[in-house]
Amino acid sequence: MKNARVHAKLGQFTEALMQTYGVGPVPGHNLEPRYALPSRATVITILRRLFETFFPGFMGRQQVTRDTVRFHIGALLDEIADDLGEQIYAAVRHEDSELANDRLKSRRFAEDCVLGLFEKLPEIRRALILDVQAGYDGDPAAKNANEVILSYPGLAAIATYRVAHELEACGVPLLPRIMTEWAHSRTGIDIHPGATIGESFFIDHGTGVVVGETCLIGNHVKLYQGVTLGALSFPKDERGKLIRGLRRHPQICDHAVIYSGATILGDVTIGEGSVIGGNVWLTQSVPPHTKVLNTPQIPTFRKGGNGPQAASDDEE
Amino acid sequence: MKNARVHAKLGQFTEALMQTYGVGPVPGHNLEPRYALPSRATVITILRRLFETFFPGFMGRQQVTRDTVRFHIGALLDEIADDLGEQIYAAVRHEDSELANDRLKSRRFAEDCVLGLFEKLPEIRRALILDVQAGYDGDPAAKNANEVILSYPGLAAIATYRVAHELEACGVPLLPRIMTEWAHSRTGIDIHPGATIGESFFIDHGTGVVVGETCLIGNHVKLYQGVTLGALSFPKDERGKLIRGLRRHPQICDHAVIYSGATILGDVTIGEGSVIGGNVWLTQSVPPHTKVLNTPQIPTFRKGGNGPQAASDDEE
Amino acid sequence: MKNARVHAKLGQFTEALMQTYGVGPVPGHNLEPRYALPSRATVITILRRLFETFFPGFMGRQQVTRDTVRFHIGALLDEIADDLGEQIYAAVRHEDSELANDRLKSRRFAEDCVLGLFEKLPEIRRALILDVQAGYDGDPAAKNANEVILSYPGLAAIATYRVAHELEACGVPLLPRIMTEWAHSRTGIDIHPGATIGESFFIDHGTGVVVGETCLIGNHVKLYQGVTLGALSFPKDERGKLIRGLRRHPQICDHAVIYSGATILGDVTIGEGSVIGGNVWLTQSVPPHTKVLNTPQIPTFRKGGNGPQAASDDEE
Repeated sequence: MKNARVHAKLGQFTEALMQTYGVGPVPGHNLEPRYALPSRATVITILRRLFETFFPGFMGRQQVTRDTVRFHIGALLDEIADDLGEQIYAAVRHEDSELANDRLKSRRFAEDCVLGLFEKLPEIRRALILDVQAGYDGDPAAKNANEVILSYPGLAAIATYRVAHELEACGVPLLPRIMTEWAHSRTGIDIHPGATIGESFFIDHGTGVVVGETCLIGNHVKLYQGVTLGALSFPKDERGKLIRGLRRHPQICDHAVIYSGATILGDVTIGEGSVIGGNVWLTQSVPPHTKVLNTPQIPTFRKGGNGPQAASDDEE
Repeated sequence: MKNARVHAKLGQFTEALMQTYGVGPVPGHNLEPRYALPSRATVITILRRLFETFFPGFMGRQQVTRDTVRFHIGALLDEIADDLGEQIYAAVRHEDSELANDRLKSRRFAEDCVLGLFEKLPEIRRALILDVQAGYDGDPAAKNANEVILSYPGLAAIATYRVAHELEACGVPLLPRIMTEWAHSRTGIDIHPGATIGESFFIDHGTGVVVGETCLIGNHVKLYQGVTLGALSFPKDERGKLIRGLRRHPQICDHAVIYSGATILGDVTIGEGSVIGGNVWLTQSVPPHTKVLNTPQIPTFRKGGNGPQAASDDEE
Repeated sequence: MKNARVHAKLGQFTEALMQTYGVGPVPGHNLEPRYALPSRATVITILRRLFETFFPGFMGRQQVTRDTVRFHIGALLDEIADDLGEQIYAAVRHEDSELANDRLKSRRFAEDCVLGLFEKLPEIRRALILDVQAGYDGDPAAKNANEVILSYPGLAAIATYRVAHELEACGVPLLPRIMTEWAHSRTGIDIHPGATIGESFFIDHGTGVVVGETCLIGNHVKLYQGVTLGALSFPKDERGKLIRGLRRHPQICDHAVIYSGATILGDVTIGEGSVIGGNVWLTQSVPPHTKVLNTPQIPTFRKGGNGPQAASDDEE
């Protein structure tokens, strides 16, 4: 049903909103005739198609067989190449950079990045198979590898990261973060595309995991839900502005395990094979083959649980 | 393929399920001819269109330019007005209230709320631009403001909250919570629409953040992942039923920073410019310009990490 | 725009990717002519339709009334029966089992499981109504039961679990975990379908909750966000491989409440009516009607919060 009072003022509401577009310290619109911004929806479609090429038959097209897989993969790569090229081009053209101002060079850059990613696909695919194996080996609740591929959030987050990281390494703006934040939204696992992560990586449960931009993670590392690999306070320049791009996150060496809720901050190193216990808060390095546990805190036991006599400091 | 045994009993299964609809302490169906409930899908569409009007060219329609933006915004507002009016009307008519029983007054109320929201849109838009700026200023991993708008979960959660809060303030039932729980689902950030939040608000990473119904948050406040601003145990009335609507959550003053995993409970005040360290558990007020840290707990270091000799208290 | 250099090499990229499909320790493709894997999209559609039968008028079809509900429910069950039968059959045929090799027996098994679930639907529906009531009773921010059904993530996670658990109990492979991981993705709540959960269960906020495979949860239990009910380190067999299926998670008795961020690990028992405080870390049993709290840690208060003089150990 039409709301006559709103309709009478639609022009007025439109103008009032438009007054706000040019104002403020940061751009909040994309109204220049330059070029459209990348489309989040298209970027996600690209990712989904890449996942199909990594795990044929598991997602997307179902009736893929040995006889037909070649055609499906070829067709998927064809679609991905076109869309990804456009999205990279759109992202580059929005940068405040020399490259952005050169249409031909931007186009060439986008093509180079697509080529670069496509050359890496077999390597990414091999890494993902090791991640699947790490998931199955690391979780007694996993019934088989199919279950890991079809349902584990950790695998979805890592697959997204491995693609986004390649694009980040090529210098593609915007798209890597759109990809990893999409995975973050689906899985609760927030891996920055700039992080460096080795082989056979497993994240169990995963909700609340944060892996910061300059983390270095070795091979066969295992993280549980709620682990933060973060930074200490950020250095600022002489005008009080954050300095971006400095190394500020932990290095986690091969075979380390970090249990749920642990927080490791700053440019510290967790040695090979070391184990960080649940909820541990660390801002220092740990030698190899060391186990770090919180001093066992003995919780207080009191009579009187849930019921009319419940104490008054219960949290909502 | 048809399952003959199931098909033979479909009538029976249907009847058995229907037997359960009238039973139980709470309604679990919406079978009265009164009016349909609000549609979650339509409410989300409304939100997405509102986001388009806040950040034209960033989401939804891509080819919006200075020359055409007026038409697109006008058309979006037109669509939003109709859908939102219907959804508010549907929500009101389901209340157990005097208003709900008066069809004309309900319709008028819905129209007033749409008008009220539309008048606030420029103000919400201005607040969101400051939130974008706060995100860029507060995170060294943010490469530019576009990245914040296109991918940061904190911004999606805050934008949803700012719309939902206006509807909550108008007294609209159901819709505000449907909106903020949709954002919660996408971002892991759970902000109750009843909370009051000032300008230049930033939530980094965000998974696991809870901001309770009666929180008061000032300007330039920054929260990290896993922060709870919650309540202590709830007062109950003489029949043991929860008393609803009382103030029971913290007040966070301007320029306060609350690091990851901190929990602040109850009607306490965190003073201006104070900093609450990671994992701190607080049920008391904090004066201005104060830093609250957990007593540094020295974790125990033991030889023997991951491997055959691993200790037996590893968590899954 | 076509990327000529990529297009010239598409055949080559396709071959390179195909070289990786047969390689590696675990299957990462589904190319055998045997049968398609279950479709995640169809499984989610089945769940959404089941939710419609549990809460008619709340989701999906909106114009359902007392006069027409019979037709809608009958039609939904018809669709669910066909799709679910196919998906169970697909899941079974991918197992490495005797059953999987027998086409007729696999089909029969799928039909039996659909019948079994359909017979349980009224019971599941009754349980969900009690869960709704528990949500309303347990949260002062809940305005009415409709709000709980339309927007609470805890209810979505529990409804998914109650369906998945029935299929898990029938021995259906893959589908139960696809279902609960879908709910995990939407809600941040990770309940393994193998867990056993009683009546009137409520999870508030919920992000980061983990309920492990062999948990036993009684009636009227309440969990808050970030609660882990997990396992200690897993026993391995003589070849160093994890032993799967052993009991390794907590039992939570009736009327227990577990506050946010608490972690309970291993095969321990939390007695009836006991309350576990926020952030408590427990690897031992707790008697009935007992309250367990962390020894109050007094955080250190220091002058100097946010600003130029901020201390240097702030986390990102």
